[in-house]
Amino acid sequence: MAGKACNVLITGANRGLGLEMVKQLAETSCPGRRIFAGCRDPSAPKSQSLQELAKQHPGVIHVIRLDVADLSSIKESAKQVGLFLGKDGLNLLVNNAGMATHEDMKTAGPKEMQDTFNTNIMGPMLVTKEFLPYLREAAKSSGEPGMSCSKAAVINISTILASIAKVPETVAFFPVFALPYRISKAGLNMLTVCNAVEFKDDGILFALLHPGWVQTDMGGAGGAIDAQESVSGMLRVMSDLTEKQSGAFLDYNGQSLPW
Amino acid sequence: MAGKACNVLITGANRGLGLEMVKQLAETSCPGRRIFAGCRDPSAPKSQSLQELAKQHPGVIHVIRLDVADLSSIKESAKQVGLFLGKDGLNLLVNNAGMATHEDMKTAGPKEMQDTFNTNIMGPMLVTKEFLPYLREAAKSSGEPGMSCSKAAVINISTILASIAKVPETVAFFPVFALPYRISKAGLNMLTVCNAVEFKDDGILFALLHPGWVQTDMGGAGGAIDAQESVSGMLRVMSDLTEKQSGAFLDYNGQSLPW
Repeated sequence: MAGKACNVLITGANRGLGLEMVKQLAETSCPGRRIFAGCRDPSAPKSQSLQELAKQHPGVIHVIRLDVADLSSIKESAKQVGLFLGKDGLNLLVNNAGMATHEDMKTAGPKEMQDTFNTNIMGPMLVTKEFLPYLREAAKSSGEPGMSCSKAAVINISTILASIAKVPETVAFFPVFALPYRISKAGLNMLTVCNAVEFKDDGILFALLHPGWVQTDMGGAGGAIDAQESVSGMLRVMSDLTEKQSGAFLDYNGQSLPW
Repeated sequence: MAGKACNVLITGANRGLGLEMVKQLAETSCPGRRIFAGCRDPSAPKSQSLQELAKQHPGVIHVIRLDVADLSSIKESAKQVGLFLGKDGLNLLVNNAGMATHEDMKTAGPKEMQDTFNTNIMGPMLVTKEFLPYLREAAKSSGEPGMSCSKAAVINISTILASIAKVPETVAFFPVFALPYRISKAGLNMLTVCNAVEFKDDGILFALLHPGWVQTDMGGAGGAIDAQESVSGMLRVMSDLTEKQSGAFLDYNGQSLPW
């Protein structure tokens, strides 16, 4: 993937893994690449690092307003991105924006559940829907056989905490229960596998990645790896994906995770 | 379970599997059993069969208003049921109420997703939360070792369509994609497994049951089995559950399903 010109959209791109992914992709020499870096509020102080990065890569990084919990914002961003994309379409969508709360059954109420559901499942679903025409265009115009992240793909950032099979294990090593987060990400896993089936004939690859336990605002300072290591691992995994892995759930080292 | 007096609450009890479960439990001779049959609107024509059944079993079947998509209704029903329950508590909660829409990615919008999420995940979650004190009382007062549905248990009605591993298989035999339904039930599976861990020390058993493809309003006339066969199977499976199966995902024959 890294060696080919391609149009990429990353949501939640102003910090953490999203910001690091924009950075690593921008640093890969690749004429004609366009990176659309979506974030809720491009002019806010918390988007400053992204804006500075964009200035260092003029014409490559395009910062766009994209709140994945707001359908009108998603639609507007799709229009904006569409103006830049020609018949090449969008090759890669990384649904990275997400939220986590630390509730268990005692403390999780309707509000935390709804917010987490909206951001972590509805967000990727609606973003994928709105950008699907561009992904289809990319698949059609590529001329390549099979599937790949340089042709047309949606990567949904999941988590090992979404693995139902691993609950007894992850509860033991991960002190916070994060019930709404786990539920929403299990739903995201289902969405992704269903999408892989529904859009197989369109030539669009779908996969789920667990970034590892990363030292970010969300992962906390106790993370096992830093964002640089996580993202370089994920980009390596993404570059190796083929139609055989469409619908797969892999960690940043390419290891398969159980549902 | 069938041989012991116990207090049972079943949601969505006015039709389909819920109504059949109330019927089969009421027909089991068992002095002192109380069956709380929750439904959205006890006075509506669609609750008539349940009301007639209740008349045949006075003092056993108690029809209560319970809309699982409405927190105030859940709280009110918990108060009502609490008036009947003494220190024996509630032995068994069957979260059966659910909804299914037939949307795929093209047709599913925020509204179908929200409604399905509210009914199929938030509903069981909030009902479980509100009735938890009664379940705890039942576990405490039973004096039995281990876990069982006659002591204290929550059975969440899931579906084979919630199995992420089985998506390629179920898409092939089940013509309707039902994306919001699948996502919500995968989330319910995660909720249930997390609950099994969180409330293990309280002695409360949690399990997921797939009722089979049943000829009901939801399953359609093309179902493979009728409600009678499905429910008698599920009650048999429930009566055999022990602490070893807490967090399990089983079909109405007791076969384990993959996540």
